[in-house]
Amino acid sequence: MIHLLDKEEFHTHKGIIKTSEIIGKKFGDSVVTTTGHRLYILKPSFYDKIQTFRRPTQILYDKDIGFTLFKLGIEPGMRVIETGTGSGVVTAALANIVKPGGHVYSYEANKDFSENAKSNLSKVGLLKYVTIKCSDARHGFEESGVDAVFLDLGDPWNVIPHAFKSLGDGSNLASFSPTINQVEKAVSTMKSEGFLAIETIELLLRRIRIEDGKSRPETHMIGHTGYLTFARKAKKQEE
Amino acid sequence: MIHLLDKEEFHTHKGIIKTSEIIGKKFGDSVVTTTGHRLYILKPSFYDKIQTFRRPTQILYDKDIGFTLFKLGIEPGMRVIETGTGSGVVTAALANIVKPGGHVYSYEANKDFSENAKSNLSKVGLLKYVTIKCSDARHGFEESGVDAVFLDLGDPWNVIPHAFKSLGDGSNLASFSPTINQVEKAVSTMKSEGFLAIETIELLLRRIRIEDGKSRPETHMIGHTGYLTFARKAKKQEE
Amino acid sequence: MIHLLDKEEFHTHKGIIKTSEIIGKKFGDSVVTTTGHRLYILKPSFYDKIQTFRRPTQILYDKDIGFTLFKLGIEPGMRVIETGTGSGVVTAALANIVKPGGHVYSYEANKDFSENAKSNLSKVGLLKYVTIKCSDARHGFEESGVDAVFLDLGDPWNVIPHAFKSLGDGSNLASFSPTINQVEKAVSTMKSEGFLAIETIELLLRRIRIEDGKSRPETHMIGHTGYLTFARKAKKQEE
Amino acid sequence: MIHLLDKEEFHTHKGIIKTSEIIGKKFGDSVVTTTGHRLYILKPSFYDKIQTFRRPTQILYDKDIGFTLFKLGIEPGMRVIETGTGSGVVTAALANIVKPGGHVYSYEANKDFSENAKSNLSKVGLLKYVTIKCSDARHGFEESGVDAVFLDLGDPWNVIPHAFKSLGDGSNLASFSPTINQVEKAVSTMKSEGFLAIETIELLLRRIRIEDGKSRPETHMIGHTGYLTFARKAKKQEE
Repeated sequence: MIHLLDKEEFHTHKGIIKTSEIIGKKFGDSVVTTTGHRLYILKPSFYDKIQTFRRPTQILYDKDIGFTLFKLGIEPGMRVIETGTGSGVVTAALANIVKPGGHVYSYEANKDFSENAKSNLSKVGLLKYVTIKCSDARHGFEESGVDAVFLDLGDPWNVIPHAFKSLGDGSNLASFSPTINQVEKAVSTMKSEGFLAIETIELLLRRIRIEDGKSRPETHMIGHTGYLTFARKAKKQEE
Repeated sequence: MIHLLDKEEFHTHKGIIKTSEIIGKKFGDSVVTTTGHRLYILKPSFYDKIQTFRRPTQILYDKDIGFTLFKLGIEPGMRVIETGTGSGVVTAALANIVKPGGHVYSYEANKDFSENAKSNLSKVGLLKYVTIKCSDARHGFEESGVDAVFLDLGDPWNVIPHAFKSLGDGSNLASFSPTINQVEKAVSTMKSEGFLAIETIELLLRRIRIEDGKSRPETHMIGHTGYLTFARKAKKQEE
Repeated sequence: MIHLLDKEEFHTHKGIIKTSEIIGKKFGDSVVTTTGHRLYILKPSFYDKIQTFRRPTQILYDKDIGFTLFKLGIEPGMRVIETGTGSGVVTAALANIVKPGGHVYSYEANKDFSENAKSNLSKVGLLKYVTIKCSDARHGFEESGVDAVFLDLGDPWNVIPHAFKSLGDGSNLASFSPTINQVEKAVSTMKSEGFLAIETIELLLRRIRIEDGKSRPETHMIGHTGYLTFARKAKKQEE
Repeated sequence: MIHLLDKEEFHTHKGIIKTSEIIGKKFGDSVVTTTGHRLYILKPSFYDKIQTFRRPTQILYDKDIGFTLFKLGIEPGMRVIETGTGSGVVTAALANIVKPGGHVYSYEANKDFSENAKSNLSKVGLLKYVTIKCSDARHGFEESGVDAVFLDLGDPWNVIPHAFKSLGDGSNLASFSPTINQVEKAVSTMKSEGFLAIETIELLLRRIRIEDGKSRPETHMIGHTGYLTFARKAKKQEE
């Protein structure tokens, strides 16, 4: 994604193209670079848009985001809490589905990160469906009765009790953690808070090189991003 | 998910509960079975709902559905084509996100499957966002300018040219196939049709058993469901 | 592997064969069963032989055994300690390579297991290269200067100091554990004992169904057996 | 592994050590470098030795070699054929187990590779158990009645018929190929030659970083090396 009016020409690793050649073209048209490569002008998908986000923090991988959205059952109109915001990629993915009637409340303690995320979300037109709160989730969430909570922070166990309070009955929690030790502490806290149907998974994504008669998985792959834990809130029983 | 008025009592593997005990309770409440187990009444999530679908056909796995929805950039308001409908699980997943303004056009040549899928979608309130066509996708799609096409059938190469015609410029195609040979033929057809940014991946999901001091991946896992291939439409160049 | 003189005929899931038909045949010959299936008489490989072992205990998987033998650099003439013996499969694998000049010292606290392992090893002619000690490894090993130690027991940390004493300088230790928590305790003990070059891995084996034009990984696979940790002994420094 | 008399001092990434400081020390002793790091003098294991091989060709990974040796049932005294020799790593692994009574016949069409492999094997004292033949395996093997054949070349289908002739009845074949298409052609040839018990697998190795309270799989891993196919020879039936 390029902002067309920024420069007179663009230098790509496939040669140079002039802005003037692009203006007036439609999505699907193409231009030829100075080195003879044909480049296509494509309507950016949501997936393209989030690739342009400035990312000061490590981000979740597509495989983890896609699975989480599906398991949490995110749909238009939902109200969702997330922490931390990070670069806002998950925030955008949530907002892009709950819009236009729903809302994402995203907590980020780091001021630089929250400002950067706002800028990222604004750039792709999703900031109106999001409230980014520069606030430490360990001190609690202000919303209640929300449809889902997603946690991506180093000490989820300190936030899980707040998530329980904010979730509506029967609503879902997801938590992402890189180490098995974090998962153990998180699951233990989920159990003591009364969460049900707790399950932990990890996803491995393998790229396959398809060439007629020479197809094979790629040599290198990401061996680990983190574990995803899902749980369900049920009203606490009075003893 | 249980339809409450069907029976006087329910037999579960954790004991029997009387319908009369459940009526009047709210989501989050619980009942105690004849064998002393506490069962919770939870508001069904979208994910729960699709677990109730009758499934005469093999279905895609969650990991594959979640990733596909995210990579295709499915969002509210989109118009999407899918074939085959199968039991309607992917149809429901698509409809649940494109709703209320968008629409899913789902092609299924098998009459029994298309009737069953209609019934499944109706049960969860999503049929109004879906048109199920009992029609063979090999003969073409009636829609044009759609935002995404998802193919889950044995011979995607016979349908990929129709997908190209129906997709809007810059829009995305996804195709699911169990064998590497199908993927090779599909990718070859995508290339000759002019699709760009073709990539194939597979996802492995591993369940992790979390127990304090005894955490480990589960012994058994699904080793393969299928390969997912994604591609992007760009307008064909006149030579 | 069948002991020919045991019965007059053999019932297999591909039909019945008479002992008299087999006698006089050579390896590579075949017989036809009552249901018309051709069965081949093959010289049992070492791999076949260990498939016949009675296995009262869970056993290590081939993938783990093969990798361990290679990483430990097991070769003819080596002296190796192992515990627990279990059904003797790893014992046999070790003995089959260190033979005829080397020896395996295998510690097994459970009397039934050690007797069964002796019987298994005797059946395949390897008992003469093995000393099975019905003794608890937590009380120490009697051998010193050995070329390798392999640990497969629930609390390796209680045996690692004994392994350090028994290993020759520069020799290798391997330890197998199903849970990540066991590995953490084992690695911590290895470090405090002075082991070097500690590394932990896991292996995933996937079966591939090869059929012309329909090749794909098998649907089901073993998702986890355990973690393998390798370490190197170096003489302790006097402070 | 360092040849001690080559230089007066050694530069490592942990500082410099003088040769004179090492001489007279035993395995297990240590020296301190100019930057204060303690380095240990360890007896090289077989595994260390093969790390020193000059490798002009791509080599098989440990996981694949270890599993192959075990599945083929390689043991002291066996006669084994291998092609291509490559850098001689698999040759060394085979020789190190079949020694002293067995022998490896290794075919390599490329003269530079075969010379380099000879030099590598000589360096680790294994050349006396190996005959490296600078000859194209497509023209056949000179040995017969061998206990195992291992194929690592681009067109195994051209060599599989020769492998069948050279193998003793009931003996095992293994073949390594990076692409699924090669495996399909190899398996098809194995079937038409009369091989039995054909199976194909792939191994994934994942390194685990163990740190107390922060244990997790490594971020990067090798996603693919190749597929291993195993098969068993049975005497051909006269029709």
